[in-house]
Amino acid sequence: MSSVKQVADFARSSCAVASTLDIIGDKWSLLVIRDLFAGKSTYGEMLASGERVPTNILADRLKRLEEAGIVEKNAYQERPVRFAYTLTPKGRDMGDILIALVRWGRKHIPDSTAHAFAERAARATAKPRVTKKPKARRA
Amino acid sequence: MSSVKQVADFARSSCAVASTLDIIGDKWSLLVIRDLFAGKSTYGEMLASGERVPTNILADRLKRLEEAGIVEKNAYQERPVRFAYTLTPKGRDMGDILIALVRWGRKHIPDSTAHAFAERAARATAKPRVTKKPKARRA
Repeated sequence: MSSVKQVADFARSSCAVASTLDIIGDKWSLLVIRDLFAGKSTYGEMLASGERVPTNILADRLKRLEEAGIVEKNAYQERPVRFAYTLTPKGRDMGDILIALVRWGRKHIPDSTAHAFAERAARATAKPRVTKKPKARRA
Repeated sequence: MSSVKQVADFARSSCAVASTLDIIGDKWSLLVIRDLFAGKSTYGEMLASGERVPTNILADRLKRLEEAGIVEKNAYQERPVRFAYTLTPKGRDMGDILIALVRWGRKHIPDSTAHAFAERAARATAKPRVTKKPKARRA
């Protein structure tokens, strides 16, 4: 069974936690999403991250996340073709999950660090501020 | 390498997201934590959950979570000995992670449902309300 089929066919229950973990419940997917929040977009940039994701795993996770509508890719170069990856709105909605993971880690795992992406994730998921229209002046 | 050693020895980077996923980054650990938030405490209760966790995986995850200080077990019966599992304060701090997963799932996965545990998780992680002391009456 291909990893792509797994995303489509595998559903353990209707529970929202289980259903979400069916997509991103592994050691790597959320690190790819973290990198995209941090502004990385190419395969090479993600391979260079501190965790040294194996190349076959990175390729598999990007494909799965694209199939799940969380990531989209666009060619930025032809011959050889090269792709840039970005988060879709559905992917950007994962900011709160990352922030919760960061907060727990910072509190409970000694010497763990929060990277700049956390702030970006927070901004990306923040509700747009309602700006009051300036009152029309009477002429 | 035993699963217990993995928890202790495996650290991909100092990133708080990666470090947290080293502990609970798989399809099952957060479902066990969900069940404990929902008030389940015995092995049999957790085996009966809708996702039908395989018995060897449940045993492994409970052991790992105990090693990581997220879950604690206490014998509630002798001969044969039976254990009840509960979340430690460190485990209860995972409520925000579960809530973020629930919200994302409810928004993006059709027909996914939030169970009662979400509310309990929210209560468990909510800051205690500051109660004003009643003013001392003048005699």
